[in-house]
Amino acid sequence: MEQKYRQGGFTLPGEAGYEQLTLELAKKWGADVIRDSDGTRLSDEIVEAGYGIYSTICIIRQHNAFAAEHPDAQQQTFLCSSPVVAEGDTLVIHPMDGYFDEQFQLNDSADALPFWQVYDRTADCEVPRNRWSYAEGVVMVTGCEPWHEYTVSFLCWRIWEEINMYNHTTNHWQSEHLRQLDPRHPAAWEYLCRWLEDWCEQNPATTVVRLTSLFYNFVWIFGSDMRNRSLFTDWASYDFTVSPAALRAFEKQYGYALTAEDFINRGKLQATHMPPTAHKRDYMAFIQAFVAEKAKVLVDIIHRYGKKAYVFYDDSWVGMEPYGPLFETVGFDGLIKCVFSGYECRLCAGAKVPTHELRFHPYLFPVGLGGLPTFSEGGHPDRDALQYWQHVRRALLRQSVDRIGLGGYLHLTQGYPEFCDVIERMAIEFRRIKELHSHGAPLTCPCRVAVLHTWGSLRSWTLSGHFHETDKHVLIHINEALSGLPVEVRFISFEDVQSGALSDVDVVINAGRAGDAWSGGAAWENPALVAELTRFVHEGGIFLGVGEPSGAPGHHTFFRMAQVLGIDKDTGARVCHGRWQFDVAEAPFTVAADALGDAADLYLTDGKATVLCAKDGIPQMTMNQFGKGLGIYMSGFQVGAESTRMLLEMLLYACHIAPEEAYLSGSPLVETAYFPADRTLVAVSSAEQEISTVIHTPSGDRAITLSPMETKLLTL
Amino acid sequence: MEQKYRQGGFTLPGEAGYEQLTLELAKKWGADVIRDSDGTRLSDEIVEAGYGIYSTICIIRQHNAFAAEHPDAQQQTFLCSSPVVAEGDTLVIHPMDGYFDEQFQLNDSADALPFWQVYDRTADCEVPRNRWSYAEGVVMVTGCEPWHEYTVSFLCWRIWEEINMYNHTTNHWQSEHLRQLDPRHPAAWEYLCRWLEDWCEQNPATTVVRLTSLFYNFVWIFGSDMRNRSLFTDWASYDFTVSPAALRAFEKQYGYALTAEDFINRGKLQATHMPPTAHKRDYMAFIQAFVAEKAKVLVDIIHRYGKKAYVFYDDSWVGMEPYGPLFETVGFDGLIKCVFSGYECRLCAGAKVPTHELRFHPYLFPVGLGGLPTFSEGGHPDRDALQYWQHVRRALLRQSVDRIGLGGYLHLTQGYPEFCDVIERMAIEFRRIKELHSHGAPLTCPCRVAVLHTWGSLRSWTLSGHFHETDKHVLIHINEALSGLPVEVRFISFEDVQSGALSDVDVVINAGRAGDAWSGGAAWENPALVAELTRFVHEGGIFLGVGEPSGAPGHHTFFRMAQVLGIDKDTGARVCHGRWQFDVAEAPFTVAADALGDAADLYLTDGKATVLCAKDGIPQMTMNQFGKGLGIYMSGFQVGAESTRMLLEMLLYACHIAPEEAYLSGSPLVETAYFPADRTLVAVSSAEQEISTVIHTPSGDRAITLSPMETKLLTL
Repeated sequence: MEQKYRQGGFTLPGEAGYEQLTLELAKKWGADVIRDSDGTRLSDEIVEAGYGIYSTICIIRQHNAFAAEHPDAQQQTFLCSSPVVAEGDTLVIHPMDGYFDEQFQLNDSADALPFWQVYDRTADCEVPRNRWSYAEGVVMVTGCEPWHEYTVSFLCWRIWEEINMYNHTTNHWQSEHLRQLDPRHPAAWEYLCRWLEDWCEQNPATTVVRLTSLFYNFVWIFGSDMRNRSLFTDWASYDFTVSPAALRAFEKQYGYALTAEDFINRGKLQATHMPPTAHKRDYMAFIQAFVAEKAKVLVDIIHRYGKKAYVFYDDSWVGMEPYGPLFETVGFDGLIKCVFSGYECRLCAGAKVPTHELRFHPYLFPVGLGGLPTFSEGGHPDRDALQYWQHVRRALLRQSVDRIGLGGYLHLTQGYPEFCDVIERMAIEFRRIKELHSHGAPLTCPCRVAVLHTWGSLRSWTLSGHFHETDKHVLIHINEALSGLPVEVRFISFEDVQSGALSDVDVVINAGRAGDAWSGGAAWENPALVAELTRFVHEGGIFLGVGEPSGAPGHHTFFRMAQVLGIDKDTGARVCHGRWQFDVAEAPFTVAADALGDAADLYLTDGKATVLCAKDGIPQMTMNQFGKGLGIYMSGFQVGAESTRMLLEMLLYACHIAPEEAYLSGSPLVETAYFPADRTLVAVSSAEQEISTVIHTPSGDRAITLSPMETKLLTL
Repeated sequence: MEQKYRQGGFTLPGEAGYEQLTLELAKKWGADVIRDSDGTRLSDEIVEAGYGIYSTICIIRQHNAFAAEHPDAQQQTFLCSSPVVAEGDTLVIHPMDGYFDEQFQLNDSADALPFWQVYDRTADCEVPRNRWSYAEGVVMVTGCEPWHEYTVSFLCWRIWEEINMYNHTTNHWQSEHLRQLDPRHPAAWEYLCRWLEDWCEQNPATTVVRLTSLFYNFVWIFGSDMRNRSLFTDWASYDFTVSPAALRAFEKQYGYALTAEDFINRGKLQATHMPPTAHKRDYMAFIQAFVAEKAKVLVDIIHRYGKKAYVFYDDSWVGMEPYGPLFETVGFDGLIKCVFSGYECRLCAGAKVPTHELRFHPYLFPVGLGGLPTFSEGGHPDRDALQYWQHVRRALLRQSVDRIGLGGYLHLTQGYPEFCDVIERMAIEFRRIKELHSHGAPLTCPCRVAVLHTWGSLRSWTLSGHFHETDKHVLIHINEALSGLPVEVRFISFEDVQSGALSDVDVVINAGRAGDAWSGGAAWENPALVAELTRFVHEGGIFLGVGEPSGAPGHHTFFRMAQVLGIDKDTGARVCHGRWQFDVAEAPFTVAADALGDAADLYLTDGKATVLCAKDGIPQMTMNQFGKGLGIYMSGFQVGAESTRMLLEMLLYACHIAPEEAYLSGSPLVETAYFPADRTLVAVSSAEQEISTVIHTPSGDRAITLSPMETKLLTL
């Protein structure tokens, strides 16, 4: 093993008090950088050991004294009370009922009250200001319609920084609750800038400031009842950026005022999974501009002290938007993403920033994100690490990053030597893959896939958070499968389609539930969109619809692309219509029937589509020739080796690509990447047993045997 | 056995050539009346045997010579071509493509063409008349938007009466296809009246003219491709009543014109299962008035000849509406309903007409309605008859009819002696039940149930046709269960609720799929409706929601009655919301978990509802105290002995009725009815084995043993 594969591109979490362990593992894993973590500090012995030093800063969080002096500098959010039924013409509502009072505190200041709203939810209209009053935490509504439901939308302070709150409640921390400052507050902002300068001054050994992350956390609303603790979580929503100051600035800039209801949305809030309103889009752009401007000031300070500024792409990342138009203007030197999945690797790798770093899981914590044990009784961190590596490795084969690393408490690895060995092996494999990329990109088949949804490139790869947080959405399964396939993948919006984005695309994928942001909802009301995609397929393109693609009510078909797919969903109006009988045909690719759904109410529109899979007499997968192109439909898609293989074979078939051109293996458990510059084929196994198969190559089939989870490099 | 139970109230289908069999079975089954059937004639020997004689007339069907001379007197319908994608700016559409040309023939007369429409279905707008032309069966559209889909809505003649078409295609009849005349055509109407007078003159032995039925068949559209033969079937739609003359008369009377699109509805047609438009409601009223007026003329002719006029409540019944406002004005002497199910018995029994008659199944045909054998190899007509009797008997215990009978080819019963014995037994049981009713109504518990849906009383009991045609709709399961329960049942509309209909109701049931006529769709947009039902429950009423009750998008909850039910369905917007944890509680009644659905995306709104059944962690049945009343939710309901029992126990619990007050048995397989006038308890078993159980009565439990399917009368 050459030394170059044993060292470099690895960030180790150091831990004071475990200096020897730190340095031992730094050597074993080939670390070139040592970092601190949330809740840890490095000792001088570590800092002075010759490694690069990352220091973690959560800029808005470490200032409880300032927050105590300036409570109005704390961050806020809108909340909505639970609906209350009026039994007569007056009603008393306690807005905070049901919310966690350690996280939230009513903002009933003169500044905030004008933004409060009372709604008659039954009639879906606002109650005029003169019909309600507020005093001492209680709203009194008069002139109610009896038996209607009423809510109060109100501003409140967020008095516990959410990641600190999570760590306390998960890991039973007992320390003081950390508060968070809003950089929009002038005094707070001035204070934060000065604080950062001081910090840089006082930490000369730090080579990289690791911003964790910027200003505004993703939305995480806790309830008071332990039976429903987490009332709302959305990794990509902007609710926690709001304040009277922000609302006033918005109105000044955009010429119209936002109201509480723009955020509250009938109590549903505005989840990323749903198409945004025009107001929400404006507000997001407004916040993005603010965050970019303020982040640039911080980065400039850091640069002035000769340090680099890396930013962690999670937690309080909201408004930063690495795939937004302003990200490059900030001047970050690196982007760090914690990864469980392949799509998260691509998410990081595709951002426009000099250095991309992955923080692997498991985090060195007693329990994982889902609450299951990792470095504690019953945990298997080595298995966990390998499983995540299996997801990430195939994505790394398509697109490399610059660095990998870990986070957490290093001492927890004691007693887990298998884990330490697995990390060592992963680091070596990472460096070999990275080297291949450095000589030239891997071969990508002539199959340009565009994933089409509401957000387009802004939400490239991810939906809203980690896989296990979004696994009810079929698109995350598709994205995860795509993240390791030898095809070109991009993410486009409906606006992009109408701006000509299909001119260099072979396959369009639309996958979601009708009405959601991924399927598209009201976007499909637009006939020009439907016509453009119809043209695209008729002239030879592929439209792959999954779940309820292009679903929109009120038209002659529910799937607006039914004319291309040859299949549609009956939402009730066609219950008296006959159904085409069909035979299930043999597919020109492997069908992973278990990975499809078992949706009801699907019917063939004109009986011409070929049914490739059916359940209980209902077609679940169809293929329909349309002009020179194809419409392909899947009722669902659960990611796994077999279904990923199905997707790849389907794409190759649709794009007329022979298996050998794609270096396809004989088994779904073996995936490949061919690096032409090095004439090197990488074959990776996800099998738990040794596996023997063939790789189809342009120069003939090649037999291969791989040990469990092996990564093998072959020179062709 | 007293003779009074052996004879009377029975209509036997006679058959020429089988005179001895006819008279033998007439004796065995106690017939007092002999009828002919569709396709049979009685011989003089039968006619003169001293029985009452029913003669079947399908008034619009037996006139092919007249139809040949007056092709413009035939009936019509609107159809819509399959959508065609425009590849350029002109498009050729063959409207009839895909339709069965033995049923339909284009009406391209000068009278009809003005009612044709061409639609751009992609843009959802009509193509102006000057952009399309018609010639020789083909429509040419110019100025198309490329890649949009276009349809032609057109009038056509119906050249094969649909029941005759069904009999031909099912039973391989080879005779001439029968045509049907439109009574709106003046010459046809004059001819039909004269024809009926002549017929009455020539058939002096006939005591009852059995009209089968009136003028317009339910909608049944056949396709040309055997893979999708039945394109559309709806027992209660009015499409087959249309003609240019009807449309012009409608416009004159209502002051606005209907268009093809009012019927075609984007190619979906207007199924009874969906809420009607205001135009459809007007058109139905218009047709009902026409049908009542014309039917009265026929009935008056029949009465002038000293005969009675019974009408068959099926086939060409459209517009007759026994639960409509005009039915009584026609003057029918009897209503005959063919029955598979209990609700069909109640449907017949509840109509305002002197005589109610049930025609039992199986029909004496080689195959049944579903195409399975009955009186042919593999058939078990005795078992079928018993199964239907099991459904009908419990409904008869609640509300009696006057007569029963059979239909079809009597000779087919030869070789099926068990069937003949079963019918004999059923006839005896029917007469005993009828006698009990004649002495006084059975005891009904103080539980007044109102089934709430779009159609209200107009669609009492039925949805649209037989059970097996509508069994995807949860409400037909509810109705079937209710048809034999000792509670009062009525059917109310949303308008009724707002007119005070809840003043004497204990339980409101709303059961359906969101958007359909049974759940209610847009009716739930009305806050006054929601408020009135909320008041009703808060003051002590019961709201039982099944499936997607009160479902309507665009509000703070999807179930508009969620505040009462304590449960709601997430349609996507709440995917980031937390879910209340819950324990499954023991219910105060038997829960038939298998009969419930396994719906996803249900969530407790405020965590207060009691969960009585859950599947995969999702609540499927809940009960929620709301004020003095209760909201009860079931995700589904599949009718059966266990679920019917659950429904009864639930109603008794909710209305505070003790088991003995309802004469509840100890087993779901034994149901009861108590007739106070005769102090007689009827216990019926649906068990296939002998069963011993108890009946709870106000005077104590009573042990009872019933043989399979037994009907037992006990004097208390």
